[in-house]
Amino acid sequence: MSEREFDVIVVGAGPAGEVCAGRLGDGGLSVAVVEEHLIGGECSFYACMPSKSLLRPGELLAEVRRIPGAREAVSGELDVAAVLSRRDEIIHDLDDSGMEPWLAERGIELVRERGRLDGERRVRAGDDVLVARRAVVVATGTSALVPPIEGLREAEPWTNREATTAKAAPERLVILGGGVVGVEMAQAWRVLGSQVTLIEAADRLIAREERFAGEQVAEALSELGVDMRIGVKATAVRAGGGEVTVELEDGMQALGDELLVAIGRRQNTDDLGLETVGLEGGGPIEVDDRMAVNDWLYAIGDVNGRVLLTHMGKYQGRIAADVILGKDAHAMHDDGRSPRVIFTDPQVAAVGHTLDSARQAGLSVRAVDVPTQGNAGASFYGRDSAAGTARLVVDEDRGLIAGATFTGPEVQDFLHAATIAVIGEVPIERLAHAVPSFPTRSEVWLYLLEGLEA
Amino acid sequence: MSEREFDVIVVGAGPAGEVCAGRLGDGGLSVAVVEEHLIGGECSFYACMPSKSLLRPGELLAEVRRIPGAREAVSGELDVAAVLSRRDEIIHDLDDSGMEPWLAERGIELVRERGRLDGERRVRAGDDVLVARRAVVVATGTSALVPPIEGLREAEPWTNREATTAKAAPERLVILGGGVVGVEMAQAWRVLGSQVTLIEAADRLIAREERFAGEQVAEALSELGVDMRIGVKATAVRAGGGEVTVELEDGMQALGDELLVAIGRRQNTDDLGLETVGLEGGGPIEVDDRMAVNDWLYAIGDVNGRVLLTHMGKYQGRIAADVILGKDAHAMHDDGRSPRVIFTDPQVAAVGHTLDSARQAGLSVRAVDVPTQGNAGASFYGRDSAAGTARLVVDEDRGLIAGATFTGPEVQDFLHAATIAVIGEVPIERLAHAVPSFPTRSEVWLYLLEGLEA
Repeated sequence: MSEREFDVIVVGAGPAGEVCAGRLGDGGLSVAVVEEHLIGGECSFYACMPSKSLLRPGELLAEVRRIPGAREAVSGELDVAAVLSRRDEIIHDLDDSGMEPWLAERGIELVRERGRLDGERRVRAGDDVLVARRAVVVATGTSALVPPIEGLREAEPWTNREATTAKAAPERLVILGGGVVGVEMAQAWRVLGSQVTLIEAADRLIAREERFAGEQVAEALSELGVDMRIGVKATAVRAGGGEVTVELEDGMQALGDELLVAIGRRQNTDDLGLETVGLEGGGPIEVDDRMAVNDWLYAIGDVNGRVLLTHMGKYQGRIAADVILGKDAHAMHDDGRSPRVIFTDPQVAAVGHTLDSARQAGLSVRAVDVPTQGNAGASFYGRDSAAGTARLVVDEDRGLIAGATFTGPEVQDFLHAATIAVIGEVPIERLAHAVPSFPTRSEVWLYLLEGLEA
Repeated sequence: MSEREFDVIVVGAGPAGEVCAGRLGDGGLSVAVVEEHLIGGECSFYACMPSKSLLRPGELLAEVRRIPGAREAVSGELDVAAVLSRRDEIIHDLDDSGMEPWLAERGIELVRERGRLDGERRVRAGDDVLVARRAVVVATGTSALVPPIEGLREAEPWTNREATTAKAAPERLVILGGGVVGVEMAQAWRVLGSQVTLIEAADRLIAREERFAGEQVAEALSELGVDMRIGVKATAVRAGGGEVTVELEDGMQALGDELLVAIGRRQNTDDLGLETVGLEGGGPIEVDDRMAVNDWLYAIGDVNGRVLLTHMGKYQGRIAADVILGKDAHAMHDDGRSPRVIFTDPQVAAVGHTLDSARQAGLSVRAVDVPTQGNAGASFYGRDSAAGTARLVVDEDRGLIAGATFTGPEVQDFLHAATIAVIGEVPIERLAHAVPSFPTRSEVWLYLLEGLEA
């Protein structure tokens, strides 16, 4: 056993840990990153990246079929093998060696072990103990939560990991949970050929978003042929003979060749040695807006439970690195109001408050809604598809946008305008001078602002 | 001859005039619109809308061919007849009757005549004289400029009107002018089957944009097979036998079945009766930032020469209407810095200053460039296509973005984020907290801001 010293030790090399380590290395500190699995983490290999690689070809083919002149060129179907092969390329066949040079260029030492806290400023990594002169940053992320439903664990369900890396479309896929993972995987595998049953206990899908978003996604999934079971709980699971049966509280059953559990996430803090520094495991690690637990311990990304989104984890990684480098940095909006995109078709892109969350937060707000596709630019995009809805939630006391949601075909890159308006606190009065170009679909902003005048 | 009174008379029912009239009508004023040709104007029938309908199917088909899994479904080619037929649908076969109810609902009287000023607050329209109690708004737009090149006018060249409404792709098309109309039409008709020669006298295309934008568009057009003649002047044109020959100063010739002149625009003020109110015709009508010439005369859209863009004309229409309605309204950035999109592939989307224009304006600026496609989201869009460039021009004294340009595949809806940042004067420091969602291509912002730190 040897002891080695670094300025900073980062435990976990997902997006948050990587970004933090890189920024610290660029800032001149000596950094060790401890990661037993893949550099790049859940997002690169088992979540954001493979899921989008499964979704995008189908979305694009649906779009080309809507556009006269182009659709006539399409005679075939989605090539499922090619989609899966491109997915494998995107996740580098689960090989992360391509990331090693990026760390090495920044002088970052990679320790391929499981990291555990071992008292103040100490991290045990296999046989070694790493000692941090300045800080330890925990970035161990989350794993799929498997809820205590009778027979569920024994059925060895898919989590996001198997759902995003499966080598073939299962004939029948049952999905437990209609949150982001559930709806994206329902869309992806349905389009890739599976019969999909989606079970959601709440009365709507993607329940943290505006109600219309969940309704529009439900309608689209239904149209694709997904068997929707909304507002009904799973009571038991039975597996056997290569088949899994989910019993529902309404007395119905859902049968699948595979079962995906997509109920939520739990922080990876059970076996992290938190007790050696006087903290409890089993839940998120609470931090302040500097990502600090105390004067030497930081937690970034999913593991701090503030918001489970790759881009916000990377943002927190930058904040923590800046704080450790001695800057006065604080995170803003790294919570349920963070910008977020769901890559179904229609897509759902939102930032800031929903109307409900704003009211619950005690804000004096009103909403204005327009059809996302209700403008000249939409003549060329997403034609004949559901119109989608664009909503601004306006803080009437401050004259600012408190939140925005866009649903519709390929609205993902609409979002950043709203993000800048919300985070930049651009007054509504000034937004009227930010003119969207004709004929782009960004003219949705024009109609939203006109709606606010009415 | 009869005299009729209205609160406001709008001369010209293009986008600017329409929007202005509609807003005045909504504001409770009595309004007459005088238009001898089409309600909706050049943009709806002969410019923005038909050009995009010609471009979009080819762009989309190019994109689907880049994406594994989807591209295998494509075995055919662009269906030119279907593209042209959809174009005809977009321009309603040059029938504007669909717009009449929109005016009627707002109580706006449509006078289908050519309108001419006839002294203070008076407009002659056919046999009638219309008298304005409050204001006359001129919105007569521009027409294609035909430069005094020997033989050009006699050759009866296409302007944007014929180029956007042609019933078939000419076998050989020669285009004079590598501005926005020239490059868009070169791309459109090349993809639709024409042999295209593009002649530009300056040393680069779309010369008002960043140099890299023109270079990338030139490269893409070359790859499509457009015969590029850049930095060479046309000296004479000869037409005969169904063929047109353009003589070039380098001694070469360009031969076509059709010749499109896309050199620029001239304001429609020649036959407007400006002399009856003490003004000169033949050029733009100068206005202040309230769109006012004097206490009763306003000019909006192309005709005032401030910026020739539909969305800015509509914006000016809103400003003028608000001023006439008694509000304190002023236009901002309605000049060369206005947001603008060129719908080639790569697209060019820009707002605010270019690096050159900022320097010429005496600003202390620096630029940061990153590849538009240099992010995870680009794995799913525009793959294998030219990377494109994203540039921020930063005003170092003020800590603000003075301009932004994005080139690349389908970047049109990236622009509005930059427009809000520029017009909203969001400090760079605050922009670092406006986090783009992963994995969207909007992460280009992340790399731009990181580049600024370096």
